[in-house]
Amino acid sequence: MPSYSAPVRETRYIFEHLLGLDRYSNLPGFENATPDMIEAILTEGAKFAEQVLQPLNRVGDEKGCVRHDDGSVSTPPGFKEAYDQFREAGWTTLSAPVEYGGQGLPHVVSTALTEYLVSANQAFEMYHGLTQGAISSILVKGSDEQKATYVPKMVSGEWCGTMNLTEPHCGTDLGLLRTKAEPNEDGSYRITGTKIFISAGEHDLAENIIHLVLAKRAGAPDNVKGISLFIVPKFLVNADGSIGARNGVSCGSIEEKMGIHGNSTCLLNYDGATGWLVGEPEKGLQAMFIMMNAARLGVGLQGLAQGEVARQNAVQYAKDRRQGRSLTGAKEPDEKADPLFVHPDIRRMLMEGKAYMEAARALILWGGLLVDLVRKATSEEERQAADDLISLLTPVIKGFLTDKGFEVAVASQQVYGGHGYIREWGMEQFVRDARINMIYEGANGIQALDLVGRKLGQNGGRAIQAYFKLLAEEIAEAKAADPALPIAVALEKAVGELQAATMWLMQNGMTNPDNAGAASYSYMNLTGFVTLGLMWLRMARASTKALADGAEDRAFHEAKLVTARFYAERILPQAGAERRKLEGGAESLMALPAEAF
Amino acid sequence: MPSYSAPVRETRYIFEHLLGLDRYSNLPGFENATPDMIEAILTEGAKFAEQVLQPLNRVGDEKGCVRHDDGSVSTPPGFKEAYDQFREAGWTTLSAPVEYGGQGLPHVVSTALTEYLVSANQAFEMYHGLTQGAISSILVKGSDEQKATYVPKMVSGEWCGTMNLTEPHCGTDLGLLRTKAEPNEDGSYRITGTKIFISAGEHDLAENIIHLVLAKRAGAPDNVKGISLFIVPKFLVNADGSIGARNGVSCGSIEEKMGIHGNSTCLLNYDGATGWLVGEPEKGLQAMFIMMNAARLGVGLQGLAQGEVARQNAVQYAKDRRQGRSLTGAKEPDEKADPLFVHPDIRRMLMEGKAYMEAARALILWGGLLVDLVRKATSEEERQAADDLISLLTPVIKGFLTDKGFEVAVASQQVYGGHGYIREWGMEQFVRDARINMIYEGANGIQALDLVGRKLGQNGGRAIQAYFKLLAEEIAEAKAADPALPIAVALEKAVGELQAATMWLMQNGMTNPDNAGAASYSYMNLTGFVTLGLMWLRMARASTKALADGAEDRAFHEAKLVTARFYAERILPQAGAERRKLEGGAESLMALPAEAF
Repeated sequence: MPSYSAPVRETRYIFEHLLGLDRYSNLPGFENATPDMIEAILTEGAKFAEQVLQPLNRVGDEKGCVRHDDGSVSTPPGFKEAYDQFREAGWTTLSAPVEYGGQGLPHVVSTALTEYLVSANQAFEMYHGLTQGAISSILVKGSDEQKATYVPKMVSGEWCGTMNLTEPHCGTDLGLLRTKAEPNEDGSYRITGTKIFISAGEHDLAENIIHLVLAKRAGAPDNVKGISLFIVPKFLVNADGSIGARNGVSCGSIEEKMGIHGNSTCLLNYDGATGWLVGEPEKGLQAMFIMMNAARLGVGLQGLAQGEVARQNAVQYAKDRRQGRSLTGAKEPDEKADPLFVHPDIRRMLMEGKAYMEAARALILWGGLLVDLVRKATSEEERQAADDLISLLTPVIKGFLTDKGFEVAVASQQVYGGHGYIREWGMEQFVRDARINMIYEGANGIQALDLVGRKLGQNGGRAIQAYFKLLAEEIAEAKAADPALPIAVALEKAVGELQAATMWLMQNGMTNPDNAGAASYSYMNLTGFVTLGLMWLRMARASTKALADGAEDRAFHEAKLVTARFYAERILPQAGAERRKLEGGAESLMALPAEAF
Repeated sequence: MPSYSAPVRETRYIFEHLLGLDRYSNLPGFENATPDMIEAILTEGAKFAEQVLQPLNRVGDEKGCVRHDDGSVSTPPGFKEAYDQFREAGWTTLSAPVEYGGQGLPHVVSTALTEYLVSANQAFEMYHGLTQGAISSILVKGSDEQKATYVPKMVSGEWCGTMNLTEPHCGTDLGLLRTKAEPNEDGSYRITGTKIFISAGEHDLAENIIHLVLAKRAGAPDNVKGISLFIVPKFLVNADGSIGARNGVSCGSIEEKMGIHGNSTCLLNYDGATGWLVGEPEKGLQAMFIMMNAARLGVGLQGLAQGEVARQNAVQYAKDRRQGRSLTGAKEPDEKADPLFVHPDIRRMLMEGKAYMEAARALILWGGLLVDLVRKATSEEERQAADDLISLLTPVIKGFLTDKGFEVAVASQQVYGGHGYIREWGMEQFVRDARINMIYEGANGIQALDLVGRKLGQNGGRAIQAYFKLLAEEIAEAKAADPALPIAVALEKAVGELQAATMWLMQNGMTNPDNAGAASYSYMNLTGFVTLGLMWLRMARASTKALADGAEDRAFHEAKLVTARFYAERILPQAGAERRKLEGGAESLMALPAEAF
């Protein structure tokens, strides 16, 4: 059976040495995020993840969710009890606004905790995670009455939330959606249509579920400009806030999926259900994007979390399992064989896992801090800069980190040999669960297109230019201290590849948009390799400094320096290949007619 | 529901334009392999795969195999009937020797058919495939009596075969195995021990199962030099060839796996079972390697087969599903959206699938022909040259093609977006089934080590030198005809990377064997990229010639030229990255102590 140990030491390292949270103690919420407070949250959250959620991960996979004939859905055995415990301990409230019953802590703090929850049990965490997304949309776009009616109960976890976009005939292309909203006299709407792939769409964890639903109002344009966002609660809410009548939305079926069986992925039928417009009519996509951008960062985090738990288990197995002898002579001659750990190709997989996941964590938490700064930084300039950066990096965090999380899960399964394919060892569940992260919240190809087609050119390329400036400055600082620092040298070269690729895109994407589309995935990868390289540069500098300052935990910091060098030598060479692939252009990609495939 | 259409046109192209089978019509068996005969086998085999096996693929996945309390195992509904039909039609006999009831056709012909069977239903084909491996071992190492007793019934498919290597505590490191063989007075042995992960270990398809079992004779060295190979039939065989008493081998359990549920993966308990030595005592590994090398080529083919069926379905989905508009303006303005096919990033995935799988097929069939030449070529020199080449390429075929088969299955699933994650669409089964191919018959890391640690240096590097010569000649010929042929230019560069990597290995692998281990996976990949590049060079040349000769099917040949160019421009750049990664060496890989992970 797999195990999980929350990497609290790693999280703390990033908070202390990379993010410099103390610089922001003047910002709302940050004043409470003292090192002691963070430590308490991380260690208590780690316990909950390890002791309550992780043991339910296999149960959720094996038992799944059950839809009953009346349309109600039972979550797997133990989920309800765990959710009650989660809610009662106040874990749902960490970074929610104080005025709605939250603790008002920085987003970056709850992000750190969320990693642990997802590593322990992604299917479980999603019930909570979707609720957070729904809360954001209501807070930004909802009326005061809507906020007052729904948000406090969602913050407390008594009610959950969902997002309803996809329909049987449309996912990415939301302009095609058919769900209709017809006005009632009281200002509410009757919502009718079918939504599919609704995560946490129906379940028994919460007394109410607040669905956020995209639909077209009668008479609105039948395209992407005609979409509005509606709140459709499972149970109507009485004026006094108590639960009222059952609304006309029901679960038609639960999808049978490859993984995340513990989460109920529902087909929802809306049959004249009562809904209320959120924000302005026909501006629904904009409102949904607030939720979706948060969700995309959350999915990137899921990529990290699955890769992390998989690699932890592979490390343990490589220590325990003995097979063959070291190529340089027996390392434990008294035993009949050496541990797997001595074999370079096993270590290649483990080092890649370590190098990717530790940098992914640094990126996820930096991203979390940027989200805080977008909301809370004192000057408009800082808020703008943070917004530019996180907007640019969101598709990379979603696309690149979920790809790498899956790759690391697959490689970690590989370390187990045949046992990796057997269910009882649990590795194959990590692979199946990790697979969804590359697909939902915009398939990774859509992320690449978002990066190249939207984020890159926005405001005259302001964000990418700022990012290149930041990269150049940090590399220059690192090289000033140590001109031969391997990660600085290698990152500088990789940034050169990214700049050349950006130039190529500007020249060739204009003349033929298919060139941009054809280049997009490699461009996303290239940005990903550079960005994780930046994380390793930061870690190398921070650990060099810590060692110079006489840090006690020398082995920890020395490991960071070795891993940074590994990343430079054995991962970053990929950057050049991505550039050359994208410079291949669209021609050979688009030349064949469909029937030639 | 997924579908499958056997790529007969593609197979025929390789037979006609790449392999030049007519050059070998003087060899035994080849005289019967006329174009008409091959055409008949391919089209009839295609029908069987498409109409009988493919519809059972989902059934096998859903229902799996069932072990009953008496230790007997039922295969999924329909498998027994399909197997009877398969056997009665004579499909099991194609390339088996005539003297044992086979048709004596070239191995390359049955290889072509096997692709179809595996694409349609890998779990089903494995019952037959394992039997073929067992037959090879008995034919090469068995006594005349053993051949006469077992082989005819195995060729006819009345009996099946298995290979028993793995034990709970050892897979790769067979020196550790504990299964014991104690001599009986009549020359037979009592075999006692536990074997795990035995594919097709127990089932209801055949009246007998001939297990080939590795065990240590009493008193033999307790390491890799003490291993012998035994035949242990499920039912003893009477002197007249009829089925006798039940032997002391039984299925203790069926493993619950990630995929290939239709194949019964068994734990087998040997409890003083009667077995007979195959070949010389303590030379069991050598005998097993005959089986294993054949099996590794077969697994490489499984990589191709899973990637192929997955990509076929993705192509169809990309034609059918409408979502969004082309970046260069609506392609089908009368519809509400364009087909997925117009999107460059969708085409990237489909083109990669096409480029990898068509080249993989060319390589698999070339490999099949080399196996024939090893056995049948007229001169010792030709047999030797074929043996050198196929020995060198076997780990690449197994390791690289199963990695790429899995990648293509994952990418094909990705084309479906959310639907790819839902069981009913069938794509996730391809991913789960394809995953095993990277693990069994020697995990792919072991293949890489076999390439670098064994095959590369054998006979003073004779095989790799011959391969470089072959590559140089074919590139030179191609460039003589067209100096700017993209695949020739790009392949020449990639061969340069492979040569540099080989040189690096020779210099650095000697001084520190961990450098060889650390380099092995990238070296295998590099060899793989070059070898599939060679296949595209051959196809580009063959199709150029066909077009010049006025071939009727111009679109087919033109598509080959475009795909060769795509491979050159958008896949081969990976070769340089693999070289640079391996040149990173072992240092940063091996530097950290296990506790630092």
